[in-house]
Amino acid sequence: MEAGNLLFYFFIIFTSAKIMGEICVRLRMPPIIGELMAGVLLGNYVLGIIDNSNHVLMSFAEIGVIFLMFHIGLEIRVKDLFAVGRTAVFVGLLGVLIPLIMGFLCMHFLGYQVVESLFIATAILATSVGISAKVLQDLGLIKHKVAYIVLGAAVLDDILALIMLALVKGLAKGEFQTVEFSLLVLESIAFVGFLTWWGPKLASRTRHWIEKLNIPEGPFVLSVILCLGLAELADVIGLAAIIGSFMAGIVIDELAGVYDLENKVKYVNEFLLPFFFVMMGAHLDPRAFLEPRLLFLILLVTVVAVVSKMAGSALACMKKSWKMRIQTGICMVPRGEVGIIVGLVGLSLHTITQEIYTVVLGMSLLTTLITPPLIIWAFRTKRKNVSAPAGQSK
Amino acid sequence: MEAGNLLFYFFIIFTSAKIMGEICVRLRMPPIIGELMAGVLLGNYVLGIIDNSNHVLMSFAEIGVIFLMFHIGLEIRVKDLFAVGRTAVFVGLLGVLIPLIMGFLCMHFLGYQVVESLFIATAILATSVGISAKVLQDLGLIKHKVAYIVLGAAVLDDILALIMLALVKGLAKGEFQTVEFSLLVLESIAFVGFLTWWGPKLASRTRHWIEKLNIPEGPFVLSVILCLGLAELADVIGLAAIIGSFMAGIVIDELAGVYDLENKVKYVNEFLLPFFFVMMGAHLDPRAFLEPRLLFLILLVTVVAVVSKMAGSALACMKKSWKMRIQTGICMVPRGEVGIIVGLVGLSLHTITQEIYTVVLGMSLLTTLITPPLIIWAFRTKRKNVSAPAGQSK
Repeated sequence: MEAGNLLFYFFIIFTSAKIMGEICVRLRMPPIIGELMAGVLLGNYVLGIIDNSNHVLMSFAEIGVIFLMFHIGLEIRVKDLFAVGRTAVFVGLLGVLIPLIMGFLCMHFLGYQVVESLFIATAILATSVGISAKVLQDLGLIKHKVAYIVLGAAVLDDILALIMLALVKGLAKGEFQTVEFSLLVLESIAFVGFLTWWGPKLASRTRHWIEKLNIPEGPFVLSVILCLGLAELADVIGLAAIIGSFMAGIVIDELAGVYDLENKVKYVNEFLLPFFFVMMGAHLDPRAFLEPRLLFLILLVTVVAVVSKMAGSALACMKKSWKMRIQTGICMVPRGEVGIIVGLVGLSLHTITQEIYTVVLGMSLLTTLITPPLIIWAFRTKRKNVSAPAGQSK
Repeated sequence: MEAGNLLFYFFIIFTSAKIMGEICVRLRMPPIIGELMAGVLLGNYVLGIIDNSNHVLMSFAEIGVIFLMFHIGLEIRVKDLFAVGRTAVFVGLLGVLIPLIMGFLCMHFLGYQVVESLFIATAILATSVGISAKVLQDLGLIKHKVAYIVLGAAVLDDILALIMLALVKGLAKGEFQTVEFSLLVLESIAFVGFLTWWGPKLASRTRHWIEKLNIPEGPFVLSVILCLGLAELADVIGLAAIIGSFMAGIVIDELAGVYDLENKVKYVNEFLLPFFFVMMGAHLDPRAFLEPRLLFLILLVTVVAVVSKMAGSALACMKKSWKMRIQTGICMVPRGEVGIIVGLVGLSLHTITQEIYTVVLGMSLLTTLITPPLIIWAFRTKRKNVSAPAGQSK
């Protein structure tokens, strides 16, 4: 690919993604929807300007999603997760278990294979931390108690969904072998467990050593090395690369605050991420929404995703008021990156069909679309109370 | 290229570049030398780990250099260039004219073709703004009068060298046609002139409109769109893409300060740039330094580059003291990015040979290597004076 050619694609992808993103924000929707839609429009099935099998563009997309998960990892404070206590953990656990069971049973009864059903179930597990946090932030509700529970739970279900993805990926790759499966579970637990518990402690001990670096932007450079290194390591030992970059973000938790890494990685992300969303969108065939059978599947998976997650959340917050249980449940509804990643992994392993990938994309789109109005509805009384004594929301 | 494979290359390239960079900084050399050396080591001619014809890696390198020139453009204040006055302009002009003439004549007398000689002459024109500024900054001399002159002159000779590159590139592409050549000159002047004079004014008028953007990081996103758009436009009208991204940086001069764009683009740059330097280094065959004929050429071009630039600077500062003339001349010595870019463009057009590209790389390496000790030597008395009343350097 020549420089001119490459630049043309870069300009078109980045600009379209951002214009569509701006339109979405103005319509009170998350910009991610716009970037995906830009991909749908530019992609193989509509305008055909970009080719979703283009090597160079897909490489930028891959690095983009690795940085996305790194950035999400940087945003998460392991301590805060434990601080919001049992409620968040229960919402996280039940919010994964119930969608997993309901999703699996539902798809399996429809006649799908075990692994394929597991992939679809895995794709509906993880709440999109970015999307729910952004919506709550935009509504000025980021310091609301429900927001803390949702953020904590979303962190946990992201981790669980990623482990689940690693497991399902392992299942899809080989025949089901108990030894390999157990090894994968142990590897996942060891990798994630070691990095979660000892990683941050080890990382914070390197600080006096980081201070001695003479290279410009040393802490940022080291964080990128860790991100790429753990991503590669995760890939080598059989986990997804994104789990590695995500864990890199967790590991440098404390240092991230000291060196403001979150804000530095943000700009690499801002540049690379549109390529991921656009290339993902380019895989969606919008004619799916016109075909009754596919439309039925999309709506079914969306209903299962919404109902099961809300049921899990409501069950987990047993001791809270009904209002709070509904608010929590609604905030857990949006699915995004992780679901799309799961779909993409399934697609690349030829475990799920293009059709099912389209269903996953459609579900992500629908759940993300319905959440903002639902959150506004669920918090309407609360917001009135909040808006009176300005800045006093707690 | 698979995700795992790609990640391996990314990890190796980024990590080696930064380790070598750190080593160079500790040896009081600019980190760019280390990144180039990492490329030489990893490249086709030594370890053979990375392939300098790899499509995906070269694409990252291309985007890296586009962002480098964008960042340099952002650092430059058009006003400051005019503020340091005539001296800087003269140093810039004569510091381009004399190396151009000396370089061209020298190579042409050695028997090289006109276009090839022009390419080599163009490669020795531009002082590396980043390198000289970094060295002066590290020595605490960034507020010295000579530093201002050098920064101003380096800006101007960057622009002149880029225009020269566009012209030489045009010459190399087709046969020499007066109409096309004039068109190219006019296009260069119109493109660079319009963007320099009206660009910043037009850009600053868009501020009320930028404020209305709802998308996250709107100003940063717009700046990237402008960078990619002007790079593509420059490429389409026959100039180099890097001139476009450089001009994008110039255009948003004022806005860059308001929205702190320089610091935001820096991190995209920090991530992408090592790929450029490493891939550039991968083209260098270190055996060139062992071969008498090539070593002679490298030394000859380096001597021409150093002597002509110092002569130009000394001639331009006619009214200053001899000490200041030598200081200015030495600070103008390092060649870097632009020279390598010129070499690369020449290589890609098959105008210069691999051998000559190696000579250009060797010259960049040598001039960058000798500058820091020379600057320390030239400013040694001054530094003693400065170090006594701390923080009073003017």
